[in-house]
Amino acid sequence: MPIKFEFENPDMGVWVLLRQTHNLVLKCEDRVFNEHQLTTEQHAVLMAMKHIDGPVRPTDLARWLDRSVNSVSMIIDRMVKAGLARRVRDRKDRRTVFVSVTSKADEAFVPATVAGWGLIQEILSPLSDEDKLTLIRLLETLRDKTYDHLGSGEVVEEVRRNETENMAQFMKQAARYKSSSTPEIKRQRGKRKNI
Amino acid sequence: MPIKFEFENPDMGVWVLLRQTHNLVLKCEDRVFNEHQLTTEQHAVLMAMKHIDGPVRPTDLARWLDRSVNSVSMIIDRMVKAGLARRVRDRKDRRTVFVSVTSKADEAFVPATVAGWGLIQEILSPLSDEDKLTLIRLLETLRDKTYDHLGSGEVVEEVRRNETENMAQFMKQAARYKSSSTPEIKRQRGKRKNI
Repeated sequence: MPIKFEFENPDMGVWVLLRQTHNLVLKCEDRVFNEHQLTTEQHAVLMAMKHIDGPVRPTDLARWLDRSVNSVSMIIDRMVKAGLARRVRDRKDRRTVFVSVTSKADEAFVPATVAGWGLIQEILSPLSDEDKLTLIRLLETLRDKTYDHLGSGEVVEEVRRNETENMAQFMKQAARYKSSSTPEIKRQRGKRKNI
Repeated sequence: MPIKFEFENPDMGVWVLLRQTHNLVLKCEDRVFNEHQLTTEQHAVLMAMKHIDGPVRPTDLARWLDRSVNSVSMIIDRMVKAGLARRVRDRKDRRTVFVSVTSKADEAFVPATVAGWGLIQEILSPLSDEDKLTLIRLLETLRDKTYDHLGSGEVVEEVRRNETENMAQFMKQAARYKSSSTPEIKRQRGKRKNI
């Protein structure tokens, strides 16, 4: 395959394309999730809530999503307004607030996640399996170098540990929605037919 | 080089790593630009202003940065407060507002840009030239696929055209700061010595 020399300087080319590709992928995701009345952020929050076992506090979500508690609280505010989440006070400690998912959110989540998987597969379809593994290797190399740059301080180490664990859990979670023939999705489809 | 199979599913691996790597690169950039009393956003605005020939309106910046006029206006508000930009009304048409750079911004911009180039080279240093061209080819393939997905409507075509032109101009502009021995930087350094 011929290489297009769109960028005179390869360093700059990688840098610009990493940003461009990421931002365009986000735009595609936004569009797909919007079709299911969710934003990409809201879908990520729902995915996190599906994953975290037991009651979810905004701080748990912030850690999971690598966002500030403040920005997660704003996302939850909008989700509460949109009827996608509820805030519930802990019975034992009234200062603690938990977030829970509504049935409306549940019903949007499964088909949105299936559509999200469809998008991933569509965008990656021009790459061969070998291309994908090469891309993984190259991106991992860059990611690991950013860790080096950010230093091996405790904070970075914790971020790194959480991120790796979260991602492993995320993929386990996401894989449940990968095939559109899982029992959960069939159940969901059945429900939708009955509406 | 052995491939690390951190991700069970290659599609998910590419998807997650694209986001992770992009976000971590942003964190590195933030840190580098913060050392020069700029945010990454502010640096991007200054780069755009250096590039656009003649008076700059917020709408020009929004188009250049692929952001909404509203979000660009908020960035400019903060830059005005920080003494990095000025708003000037057009003499002929008082409704039109132009944005200009202050000398404080000028003085931060050159060393910040040189440091930004240093960061790019550091993060990409583990990749061979061949790796970089491979990464460019793979990311271009994904980017072009997102264009397909977003459709070939006029809006996307315009974004695509603007983006390509902007990026070409951006790289021409950025290349001026690449080597730390360009006349402009020497002049800047001279100035700094005299402070």
